[in-house]
Amino acid sequence: MGLVVSDITMSLDGFVAGPNATIEEPLGEGGERLHEWITGLQSWRAEHGLEGGETGPDDDVFKEFVDANGAFVMGRRMFSGGEGPWEEDAKADGWWGDDPPFKAPVFVVTHHARETVEKQGGTSFVFVTDGIESAVAQAREAAGDKNVAIAGGASVTQQCLQAGLVDEMQIHVAPLLLGDGVRLFDGGDQAQLEPVRVLGSPAVTHLKYRVRRG
Amino acid sequence: MGLVVSDITMSLDGFVAGPNATIEEPLGEGGERLHEWITGLQSWRAEHGLEGGETGPDDDVFKEFVDANGAFVMGRRMFSGGEGPWEEDAKADGWWGDDPPFKAPVFVVTHHARETVEKQGGTSFVFVTDGIESAVAQAREAAGDKNVAIAGGASVTQQCLQAGLVDEMQIHVAPLLLGDGVRLFDGGDQAQLEPVRVLGSPAVTHLKYRVRRG
Repeated sequence: MGLVVSDITMSLDGFVAGPNATIEEPLGEGGERLHEWITGLQSWRAEHGLEGGETGPDDDVFKEFVDANGAFVMGRRMFSGGEGPWEEDAKADGWWGDDPPFKAPVFVVTHHARETVEKQGGTSFVFVTDGIESAVAQAREAAGDKNVAIAGGASVTQQCLQAGLVDEMQIHVAPLLLGDGVRLFDGGDQAQLEPVRVLGSPAVTHLKYRVRRG
Repeated sequence: MGLVVSDITMSLDGFVAGPNATIEEPLGEGGERLHEWITGLQSWRAEHGLEGGETGPDDDVFKEFVDANGAFVMGRRMFSGGEGPWEEDAKADGWWGDDPPFKAPVFVVTHHARETVEKQGGTSFVFVTDGIESAVAQAREAAGDKNVAIAGGASVTQQCLQAGLVDEMQIHVAPLLLGDGVRLFDGGDQAQLEPVRVLGSPAVTHLKYRVRRG
């Protein structure tokens, strides 16, 4: 069976998004800078149907992540930026158009029930209304021998950690202080971690931990 | 001229001390766990007059830090855990006895004036009441060609960062989530950083950044 792996980019001062997220700026003020390390990578571009791009350690780490995953879990805000009933959500179809980069089932944790949406390229969005444990269990089932990626945002990641559902946590530390925004760790979790790997480039530092079950 | 280097240990969730610090538990509840990586090292033990200890990457990093420094800057709470007038401070002589490990001048930022205290082994404690810029300037003067270490705690480190006084920042990331305590980054600073080095062991991860002046 695969692992449940949380994977997220965080500024050195602990933020996974800037303040005041909007439809135009879904990662909040300054939040796009968190992901500057990723959008030029060959493996990220390939996943998005683009040619070219950089290779090197950051690309290797991202490719490893993509290749290992058989299913994703994400929060409603990461899916659409919205909240409340779907008919009032301007991005109810998600951010990614007809051919999203996931190429696997994505379990979206939400309070608002909805039929599964099938996209091109193997991506489907399954809307889970009975909580995080159910979402992870369904994702495990769908992933088979591959990993389940907890893709964010902060709230879903915290809930998974607190529920003891995360086997490994990979944090990509962006070399900047955002100063304000949404903290990855704001929930009072306590945990002992075991460093598995650390590597980086001038653009980002990748920290991977095994989470010890308490 | 040497560099001004901030050097501090932080939990992965951003804390440099646990909550509710006391004289008995100066690093707060659970805060001692932050420093588990350091107290077994050969170079730390040697600095404290002890024999033996572990060698390896963590020891190399700590030795490099010690060898590079010609002066230290620290906050009053790091020096004694106290506040207010010195005659009411139970640890007014500091935590380290007659032969402190610094072996160099230590500039303590405080609101309460006091004569310099000379200790054995080259350590002196100089009490600076006219602010962080003055403390760093005096430490630079004392350090000559060597580095000035901003040794903590969080408040002094934040003040130095915000005042643009820090050339390099080394953060030792302890592999644990403390859940509560004193955050290193809580002041709304914004900065762009440049990763200089990343390395680690199962006990800790060392991140070193150059701070770009804005």
